[in-house]
Amino acid sequence: MANLKGKDILRADQFTRDEVTLIMETARRFEDALREGQMLNNMQGLVLATLFFEPSTRTRLSFETAMLRLGGQVITVAEPKSSSAAKGESLHDTIKTVEGYADVIVLRHPKIGAAEEAAEATERPIINAGDGAGQHPTQSLLDVYTILKEKGTVDGLTIALAGDLKYGRTVHSLAELLTLYDVRLVLVSPEALRMPGEIVARLKEKGIPVEETEDLEAGLKKSDVLYMTRIQRERFDDPAEYERLKGAYVLTRSLLDEAKEGITIMHPLPRVNEIATDVDAYEGAAYFRQAANGVPVRMALLALVTGRA
Amino acid sequence: MANLKGKDILRADQFTRDEVTLIMETARRFEDALREGQMLNNMQGLVLATLFFEPSTRTRLSFETAMLRLGGQVITVAEPKSSSAAKGESLHDTIKTVEGYADVIVLRHPKIGAAEEAAEATERPIINAGDGAGQHPTQSLLDVYTILKEKGTVDGLTIALAGDLKYGRTVHSLAELLTLYDVRLVLVSPEALRMPGEIVARLKEKGIPVEETEDLEAGLKKSDVLYMTRIQRERFDDPAEYERLKGAYVLTRSLLDEAKEGITIMHPLPRVNEIATDVDAYEGAAYFRQAANGVPVRMALLALVTGRA
Amino acid sequence: MANLKGKDILRADQFTRDEVTLIMETARRFEDALREGQMLNNMQGLVLATLFFEPSTRTRLSFETAMLRLGGQVITVAEPKSSSAAKGESLHDTIKTVEGYADVIVLRHPKIGAAEEAAEATERPIINAGDGAGQHPTQSLLDVYTILKEKGTVDGLTIALAGDLKYGRTVHSLAELLTLYDVRLVLVSPEALRMPGEIVARLKEKGIPVEETEDLEAGLKKSDVLYMTRIQRERFDDPAEYERLKGAYVLTRSLLDEAKEGITIMHPLPRVNEIATDVDAYEGAAYFRQAANGVPVRMALLALVTGRA
Repeated sequence: MANLKGKDILRADQFTRDEVTLIMETARRFEDALREGQMLNNMQGLVLATLFFEPSTRTRLSFETAMLRLGGQVITVAEPKSSSAAKGESLHDTIKTVEGYADVIVLRHPKIGAAEEAAEATERPIINAGDGAGQHPTQSLLDVYTILKEKGTVDGLTIALAGDLKYGRTVHSLAELLTLYDVRLVLVSPEALRMPGEIVARLKEKGIPVEETEDLEAGLKKSDVLYMTRIQRERFDDPAEYERLKGAYVLTRSLLDEAKEGITIMHPLPRVNEIATDVDAYEGAAYFRQAANGVPVRMALLALVTGRA
Repeated sequence: MANLKGKDILRADQFTRDEVTLIMETARRFEDALREGQMLNNMQGLVLATLFFEPSTRTRLSFETAMLRLGGQVITVAEPKSSSAAKGESLHDTIKTVEGYADVIVLRHPKIGAAEEAAEATERPIINAGDGAGQHPTQSLLDVYTILKEKGTVDGLTIALAGDLKYGRTVHSLAELLTLYDVRLVLVSPEALRMPGEIVARLKEKGIPVEETEDLEAGLKKSDVLYMTRIQRERFDDPAEYERLKGAYVLTRSLLDEAKEGITIMHPLPRVNEIATDVDAYEGAAYFRQAANGVPVRMALLALVTGRA
Repeated sequence: MANLKGKDILRADQFTRDEVTLIMETARRFEDALREGQMLNNMQGLVLATLFFEPSTRTRLSFETAMLRLGGQVITVAEPKSSSAAKGESLHDTIKTVEGYADVIVLRHPKIGAAEEAAEATERPIINAGDGAGQHPTQSLLDVYTILKEKGTVDGLTIALAGDLKYGRTVHSLAELLTLYDVRLVLVSPEALRMPGEIVARLKEKGIPVEETEDLEAGLKKSDVLYMTRIQRERFDDPAEYERLKGAYVLTRSLLDEAKEGITIMHPLPRVNEIATDVDAYEGAAYFRQAANGVPVRMALLALVTGRA
């Protein structure tokens, strides 16, 4: 029986399938309770600290909402400049101090490995809300939760990851988490922004069929889910290359006509222009529902690691 | 019977007199309950998001206090720089995301029309806490509530609006709201900062007697209420004109000797020097009570739009 | 019988020994209740405003945790730039406004005397969370609480204050508070950073034996408690003098071998390098426990000044 009490949530690859299932079922239970108007008090008397040494409004508000909807309370550092770190304090010392205040700590930090460092400093559960170019495991969990809700299952699906697959932290973590399921992956990106070779190798090693392509339309035709991410100009050495490609990775309503029937469109948000706003009205456009799913999934994580699920 | 459930609060001119009366009565009821030490739990289980894309400590704290005193909870973005908007997200997308977290949204934004734009993006109630040079309807409602509490009535009063009537958002919205009552307005300003002609025309069209003057003392002599605002140097093309006028629009204790007996002095705050501190001890100096009235009025609005009044 | 209801907490020298004892006993009672998992609701229905016109994450989070753990709620200004003060409002006016929202106000301000100024503006209790180079009384109270918990008593102890005793606000306030007890003080600092003569004179006048030395090792040998603070380069006119001294005021594990058996090591945090991290594993290294003690002590203060203890 999976049990996350006292555990840290640090990396997308830390979970067994049973643990992910436990998180999904707990999230579903909380979401149903909220929909029925139940008042939850699982976290009553507990305090969450959200420490954002790098701003991320969406993630922070989502965790805080999750804690409040479980009857808990929140203390927050939303601005890196106002923190003790600005006075030269080590992350270790900051965490040792905050463990004196809070029962569970959510950390966002610009440095890879910061969440692991924090977890070593304290017995309190640490939840990694993004550590630089490293991991963002709670995003991947809400992504899987979204696929489950939209499709009823993850097993058996063909899932396209599109856009910047080289630098995109969310697609790396999601691909990792999907290896727990029986899926096929279609990796759609410009040549210069392909998924790193070691990740592709690991996916294949785990038995996941992987196809790589530069052609978004080809990806759309065969996929049950399209997970879009943004392509940033600053990733290209050659501006002309960016200009040539940028249009090819913008999803429009007319492009959807080429897609597999019933395709689900996801995006970690914020989007800038890689999904045209006329796509929003499409029934399968799930990205705002996906953002909302952050609340029950984070409720589940907070309650599970504190033993209050 | 007036009912604001599910409504947005966007503009001072959106209300019927019945709706304003409902807000005033609800605010009075909440204020009485707090004074008697009652614990209110109207908003229990609900979450308010305060999104301040432009700082306004007074307004933000006032809304947050209102929500907490009703037993609700708050998530907040107090710093524009830390928001998703800084990453290029549209206001529409930000609101679509936050509706996944919060039951009601208070928005402060530097752009005119931002609150309307937000309201179009979501079914959740939006409360406009100021949109640039546009509207600030909750300020006007607390202004009317203050007049009611201080004077026992609004009908029949002569109310002077003084200072910068050209650019002052609060006086525009308040004048608009006062057209629902049987009042006389005295508009006191330098020639260069007169109330815009179209607003004066609308006031007259609605049957409000309006007198315009440059003479603060004349306004004081005939008014039951003086609503002061600040005159800012940067509004004048000619610095000499500012120097000539600035002293004429500073309310001092000695100037009060010329005022109508029992006159009520209001100000939206913060003041800089347009009301001398020796006025504070005057019994009719209502501006700090006015600020405190923001809490019950915003409690009323939060509870009414969510159907929890 | 000591009673702090309605009182302001402004200075370390404002307390009688009975009042300090009341605070210590109340803090201990709250700490025990939390350890036993009791839900406290002393502050239910009350709102604390934390106004930090200068950032101090540790102190702010500690007060907010204290309020939340007592069942109260919090509104906060964590960023000076976003405050009304930035628009030119006086502290008096800001406090007059916030008293309309909150039942108790915690103020951190860069200006000496700001807390007294705030206390004059309002009937609400003001708690000084540091006013520039002035006072920081709640830090001193948690310091004394820590000594009591670590040693079982304060009376009879020899306590060394080490580091920058000239500019260090926390050591000034702590020395002041310790005059209520029967202690011996050892003041360890470089010549250039000695405790100000008027403070030393007052300590002696109150009958406290005081010894001054430049030698940290000598202080360690005879003290039951060592209270370390940081020596900052910018305090020295002569950089060579700083270079000569800096190593002498760094506490290392090997230096501890010279110390009196069972010595307790304290530090107000954040530390930079004045206590080597290998000291953390020493049983008597109390600085992180000291930080955690801020919560029960501030719970006691909040509850006592509002009459909810």
